[in-house]
Amino acid sequence: MPTSAPWDSLWIDLSVATMSDADGYGALVDAAVGIKDGRIAFVGRRADLTGAPDALATRVHSGRGGWMTPGLIDCHTHLVYGGNRAREFEMRLNGASYEEIARAGGGILSTVTATRAAGEDELLAATLPRLDSLLAEGVTTVEVKSGYGLDTETETRMLCVARRLAQVRAVEVRTTYLGAHALPPEFKGDPDGYIDRICTETLPAIAEAGLADAVDAFCEGIGFSVAQTRRVFETAKRLGLPVKLHAEQLSNLGGAQLVAEFGGLSADHIEHLDEDGVAAMARAGTVAVLLPGAFYALRETRLPPIDLLRRHGVPMALSTDNNPGTSPVTSLLLMLSMGCTFFRLTPAEALAGVTRHAAKALGLADRGVIAPGKRADLALWRIEHPAELAYAIGLNPCMAVVNGGVVREPRNGAEDA
Amino acid sequence: MPTSAPWDSLWIDLSVATMSDADGYGALVDAAVGIKDGRIAFVGRRADLTGAPDALATRVHSGRGGWMTPGLIDCHTHLVYGGNRAREFEMRLNGASYEEIARAGGGILSTVTATRAAGEDELLAATLPRLDSLLAEGVTTVEVKSGYGLDTETETRMLCVARRLAQVRAVEVRTTYLGAHALPPEFKGDPDGYIDRICTETLPAIAEAGLADAVDAFCEGIGFSVAQTRRVFETAKRLGLPVKLHAEQLSNLGGAQLVAEFGGLSADHIEHLDEDGVAAMARAGTVAVLLPGAFYALRETRLPPIDLLRRHGVPMALSTDNNPGTSPVTSLLLMLSMGCTFFRLTPAEALAGVTRHAAKALGLADRGVIAPGKRADLALWRIEHPAELAYAIGLNPCMAVVNGGVVREPRNGAEDA
Ligand SMILES: [Zn+2]
Ligand SMILES: [Zn+2]
Repeated sequence: MPTSAPWDSLWIDLSVATMSDADGYGALVDAAVGIKDGRIAFVGRRADLTGAPDALATRVHSGRGGWMTPGLIDCHTHLVYGGNRAREFEMRLNGASYEEIARAGGGILSTVTATRAAGEDELLAATLPRLDSLLAEGVTTVEVKSGYGLDTETETRMLCVARRLAQVRAVEVRTTYLGAHALPPEFKGDPDGYIDRICTETLPAIAEAGLADAVDAFCEGIGFSVAQTRRVFETAKRLGLPVKLHAEQLSNLGGAQLVAEFGGLSADHIEHLDEDGVAAMARAGTVAVLLPGAFYALRETRLPPIDLLRRHGVPMALSTDNNPGTSPVTSLLLMLSMGCTFFRLTPAEALAGVTRHAAKALGLADRGVIAPGKRADLALWRIEHPAELAYAIGLNPCMAVVNGGVVREPRNGAEDA
Repeated sequence: MPTSAPWDSLWIDLSVATMSDADGYGALVDAAVGIKDGRIAFVGRRADLTGAPDALATRVHSGRGGWMTPGLIDCHTHLVYGGNRAREFEMRLNGASYEEIARAGGGILSTVTATRAAGEDELLAATLPRLDSLLAEGVTTVEVKSGYGLDTETETRMLCVARRLAQVRAVEVRTTYLGAHALPPEFKGDPDGYIDRICTETLPAIAEAGLADAVDAFCEGIGFSVAQTRRVFETAKRLGLPVKLHAEQLSNLGGAQLVAEFGGLSADHIEHLDEDGVAAMARAGTVAVLLPGAFYALRETRLPPIDLLRRHGVPMALSTDNNPGTSPVTSLLLMLSMGCTFFRLTPAEALAGVTRHAAKALGLADRGVIAPGKRADLALWRIEHPAELAYAIGLNPCMAVVNGGVVREPRNGAEDA
């Protein structure tokens, strides 16, 4: 092999969904993808290569007739937590009331208690099977929120664990501080006091430590008000951190307008979003993050306003919302199916929702499409057409994953030399 | 190791859900399972073992703190077929009408055309990824129906492929002849003529060749009438084959009564089943097979009569209904989640639905529970409580599978020596 080959690696014998079209897959049949220094150096028709494959690249990989897409991006997860809520799920199906479940130690505060009690290694060990399930399906970037500690020490520990995920697995992690997720028991009856604590102590400490890439809140009748959320966002802005929001999931409080006012990255859930909110998001470039796993698990019937989002050109991302209470989902491919089945997204919209638009929801301009200069985060699929990724239910056709140019087998996380 | 050990193998360091209770999991904590000649020789508390593990068995396996359940049984699938319907799924989401899809070659007849055109090896290759997806989740027995050939030659080929699955993978296969699935184009306008063909030619030939373990039909306004189904069942009865039925999926035609009248194994789908039908099934010992994947994919809103089935003591099984048109599902664990979420089954009912009751739906008395004398078909799970199998969405915690006493790793199908 010539050491002077221009590229480090070259993929041939495959089709490519570049996802760089505004509509559709950006499909290239009989394509080639060249990689240099962890970035895409070439993507196009194989016929347009200017030489023999092994003259162009140090390593030549066969795509075995499959399809290559950008590596998948899960842009909204609560992946790090302690404890287990399966028994609560079972109690509910056996007819237990919310009071009985609360008395038995269920609900979000049970996750807070378990997370506070867990050390960093224990939290990491609890998180890895969930992360590995995502990675086996071609995920190369995952967002992880705090929000089950609700005190400075535990929120910090959760975010440290989130950062460590990227050291022990082939994945890029974006962290989000979600202190305003629920009211901790020690602030019962005093939500403003808790918001004070967030704004004066926890968020500044986390920003100082560089542990958060963004700030999120749960703006809802059962969460925090618009005024309280605004105070968190103002603190985030002062600290130079972008914001996003759990908004209009159960009611329409105007959270989407608020996050748009702050030029936020995304408004997430948004089943109750109205056209004013959609228009505000469109103007601000705020992404709509749709979470069909929570819609499914909560047996929600109110649909997010997909047609309004389309009409206003708001990019729609799709994510697992992995969390122990309302969306114990560890399959991003299943969210493509549910996005199409429940929300009537097209398969191409669904795939854009876990690639191009998910990257935008994280403020990442360097990924989510296969185009020259972008990170070489790629997934290779044993499929005949990209629509199969949304059509199949419970199948994982992932053959290989490339992280920043490095190939790994998706099942075991092992990297090649 | 003593060659005189009474058992071939012994599992310790695990909990067991025997599923042999009428209610609940039949849970045994700190349990042991002994295996001899491919059958369960012992199941109980480890404390009740009468000697040291390596004096009791030639091989001792650690369950690594997980839970063992019976191997899962998928009792209703259309796993063998040619072609691909993902593009049709996409056309529908892009707004195409049924006429446009039919003109583009979609619908069930497109699967018939592709299946007729595929040779046996091609059909086998198309089926294996779907089967492997099921096996990775601890499935040890799978039912496979014909019904995309609709002529004697292709129906025979489909059933031969189904039988071959058990030769190339560690799985037991039960085959079902489903000639009365749809009207083949060459009998357009003449359903009774097609039923004649089934009863005088195809079914006798298939029974003669020993290719079918049971006979099924699609009794529905868009399928075959009760009178036509009765003729198929009478032929099956004469040939000594048990029957089952796709019944009351879209309307209440009385198919459940019919299958009960023939002492049938199961009535499947049954969203429109009424109390008379439930009572008839209870009297006949006919199992209700619930198919939440089709319910999901078709965005059905009419629920099967779960409370009536409970009240009358009709066993409820759960299955993928894997098929390319209305349920492209290859995860049986996801059916536990959907059975609980859509149909409000309890997690224990859901697990019984893919073990004890699924075995009954196939007429198999030798499996589906962990009890002395039963087949040693087992699955080992990295979970803390069996409710997690229904709670998690898209996670596969399967650590190991045992088929007739032989251990395999679930991911790659490899067997140990
Ligand atoms: Zn969330
Ligand atoms: Zn079926």
